[in-house]
Amino acid sequence: MHLGLFAVGTGNHIAGWRHPGASKSASDIKVFLEMAKTAERAKFDMFFLADGVKCSPDYHPGFLNQLEPMTALSAISMVTSHIGLVATASTTYSEPYNLARTFASLDLISGGRAGWNMVTTSDPDSGQNFGRAEIEHDLRYEIAAEFVEVTRGLWDSWESDAIEANVESGRYAIPEKVHFLDHDGKHFQVRGPLNAARCPQGYPVLIQAGSSKTGQEFAAKYAEVMFTVQQDLEVAASFYAQVKQRVHEQGRDPQHCKILPGLLPVVGRTEREAQEKLAELASYVDEESAMETMSFRLGHDMSQYSLDGPVPKLPISGNVQGYRRMVLTDAYRKNYTLRELYNLFAVSRGYLIVCGTPSQVVDAMEEWFKAPACDGFNLTPAHFPESLDDFAELVVPELQRRSLFRTEYSGRTLREHFGLPVPTNRYSESGDG
Amino acid sequence: MHLGLFAVGTGNHIAGWRHPGASKSASDIKVFLEMAKTAERAKFDMFFLADGVKCSPDYHPGFLNQLEPMTALSAISMVTSHIGLVATASTTYSEPYNLARTFASLDLISGGRAGWNMVTTSDPDSGQNFGRAEIEHDLRYEIAAEFVEVTRGLWDSWESDAIEANVESGRYAIPEKVHFLDHDGKHFQVRGPLNAARCPQGYPVLIQAGSSKTGQEFAAKYAEVMFTVQQDLEVAASFYAQVKQRVHEQGRDPQHCKILPGLLPVVGRTEREAQEKLAELASYVDEESAMETMSFRLGHDMSQYSLDGPVPKLPISGNVQGYRRMVLTDAYRKNYTLRELYNLFAVSRGYLIVCGTPSQVVDAMEEWFKAPACDGFNLTPAHFPESLDDFAELVVPELQRRSLFRTEYSGRTLREHFGLPVPTNRYSESGDG
Repeated sequence: MHLGLFAVGTGNHIAGWRHPGASKSASDIKVFLEMAKTAERAKFDMFFLADGVKCSPDYHPGFLNQLEPMTALSAISMVTSHIGLVATASTTYSEPYNLARTFASLDLISGGRAGWNMVTTSDPDSGQNFGRAEIEHDLRYEIAAEFVEVTRGLWDSWESDAIEANVESGRYAIPEKVHFLDHDGKHFQVRGPLNAARCPQGYPVLIQAGSSKTGQEFAAKYAEVMFTVQQDLEVAASFYAQVKQRVHEQGRDPQHCKILPGLLPVVGRTEREAQEKLAELASYVDEESAMETMSFRLGHDMSQYSLDGPVPKLPISGNVQGYRRMVLTDAYRKNYTLRELYNLFAVSRGYLIVCGTPSQVVDAMEEWFKAPACDGFNLTPAHFPESLDDFAELVVPELQRRSLFRTEYSGRTLREHFGLPVPTNRYSESGDG
Repeated sequence: MHLGLFAVGTGNHIAGWRHPGASKSASDIKVFLEMAKTAERAKFDMFFLADGVKCSPDYHPGFLNQLEPMTALSAISMVTSHIGLVATASTTYSEPYNLARTFASLDLISGGRAGWNMVTTSDPDSGQNFGRAEIEHDLRYEIAAEFVEVTRGLWDSWESDAIEANVESGRYAIPEKVHFLDHDGKHFQVRGPLNAARCPQGYPVLIQAGSSKTGQEFAAKYAEVMFTVQQDLEVAASFYAQVKQRVHEQGRDPQHCKILPGLLPVVGRTEREAQEKLAELASYVDEESAMETMSFRLGHDMSQYSLDGPVPKLPISGNVQGYRRMVLTDAYRKNYTLRELYNLFAVSRGYLIVCGTPSQVVDAMEEWFKAPACDGFNLTPAHFPESLDDFAELVVPELQRRSLFRTEYSGRTLREHFGLPVPTNRYSESGDG
């Protein structure tokens, strides 16, 4: 089983910062350094930072003014030695040359621990920070696909033995081992070579989170890890089988695309303690901001409906299709009131919640893992440090006791943790460059 | 006197890596961590990384495949506590929103030690990595000026007391203290707010290196530190007076624009030892690559001329005007042969060389400083670690003995080291935000 930590400075719970002793800042590197050290002690595969290119003052406090992921992860790489370091970056508002360079640099600095969560940012608020209009859903994925092709080409620029540094002859680089890409595509024209050495992992691990049909097609082709939001074991198992099938159809080994649903654990030494913690989390919720989160994630103003009525029938289309479909389908099936759906967003931003003793939490994780409905989980603790500490101290040992999770790292790179192959350099004759 | 370190993994000398024991890599973070720690022990104001967005396989080995500056400096910030961290980034191939965010993040992570060396990248090789044509010199500066205005506006997005994080009321941010920029200019449309907190220095320290007339005007308006290439004390003193006058004409305190020429020190315990080191440096030069460097810096193919003839008369115009004018004017005045000019590029890439005992090196530095022809120097050691160690161990104590340089840091931020004011937030009533 693979475990990621979805690290949010103020906690994944929208008001997790209200918990006594919880971190209240998303801009304090010390908070992130401590989280990463705890996750590494617990042998997590990766430390993940979400990101965006806008600030909406009414949005989740963890994303209002957050450290930029590449700088934060580079700092974190200095106080950790094994855990993978995954950053979100946009294929819509970045240049492939710059992005390829920065991720290669993080991979070099961290000794092969970088991962890229590829997002196709779409909303008008982000566009207005770049003087650009909203881009239609399928076009965004078309741009993203070309973007990824370009970055992979750039990461092949330098064969791994291209630097000779021969003191006697004075020859530093071997020109035949440094390659121009000469990409001339529909959306990008990039000549290369990249001014970054071949990185330890060949390419950073490629990660994706879109669940729409187009998103799944993109993931099947490119993603080595896939984040997903799932609430229901049956739906998740069907999604899992479908993605693995699509990966296979792309000629890839389904094992090389790991599927990790989000999971918010609420852990107590007793069931009663866990329930008390959950009740406490619900008590922190500011009705207005929870409503904002729900409206934002569903792409529809929900404040117009009664919380005690049924979940209204909404059109399942637009810019965040996959996520919306999954959440709404589940809500309709279970005949949720709008308040029940609202509570879900209030406490977990839509992620699966598991509440109970360590043994109960592991039971649920094991059931999902063995279904199979996932290859592991991306954990979204409600607040820091306490709810991460709870998981690390109480749940991880139980996972290890049942031989579901590693007790020691067996490798040093993120690819090694996930059992992913190192990509072959397209230019290298030996195939190992 | 202020001191910067121009850090190049393979050394500033184009073949410095050929020196026994010298670092041979520009992609190894360990090399940069050691350099930064040495420079901090010697109480340097700042650690500086040059950068570009292209790779020309025949170019200086330190810039072929180099770590990306923002990731490298974030890592370095974790093993240092005082030294300033300055990165080069382009106003031509970046987006202001992304750049403002990343520099704010570095400033937050490092506790107020970030600086931005603003470059207006121009050459066709760089453009071809972004599907863009070369941009004319003056237009580049027009774009750069608007770019800087936008970033300064974005850095004011959050007043320093905008986060309340009131556990009782549940209010996290104070909306009235988070500001939209709503910039709608000729080259950029940026709404804001930035999704980064007000950084410790208000704005990172702004640094500039262009010496053309347009470059000097830009510097007079925006630069708080100016890098320059000077070979001749008289020319440097005149340049210094001229820039300070222009800064004054912009309504700024001339003290708030520090001028730092590059300086390559060759230091020996005796004069003979220093001369031997210089001769050794010259012996490493590969004729072809030195010729490439000279041709690139002068923007003209020099390989067509005889090395033993005079320096040919070249047009002083085009895209790197200021630098070219300074170097050529000096060469004509001193009746250099082309070989003498070539040796300069071969060993120092055009920077001033001072070779001698610690006392002789300090004599020269003191003379320039007191002329006044500078406010300090940006040091360009030939190779690492040895030539930086020489300077730190032999020259710095002599500077300190003569009370020319600090013996301890008196502040923690880069602004404090340079005696620069913290910018006032345009939205803050109290004026201290």
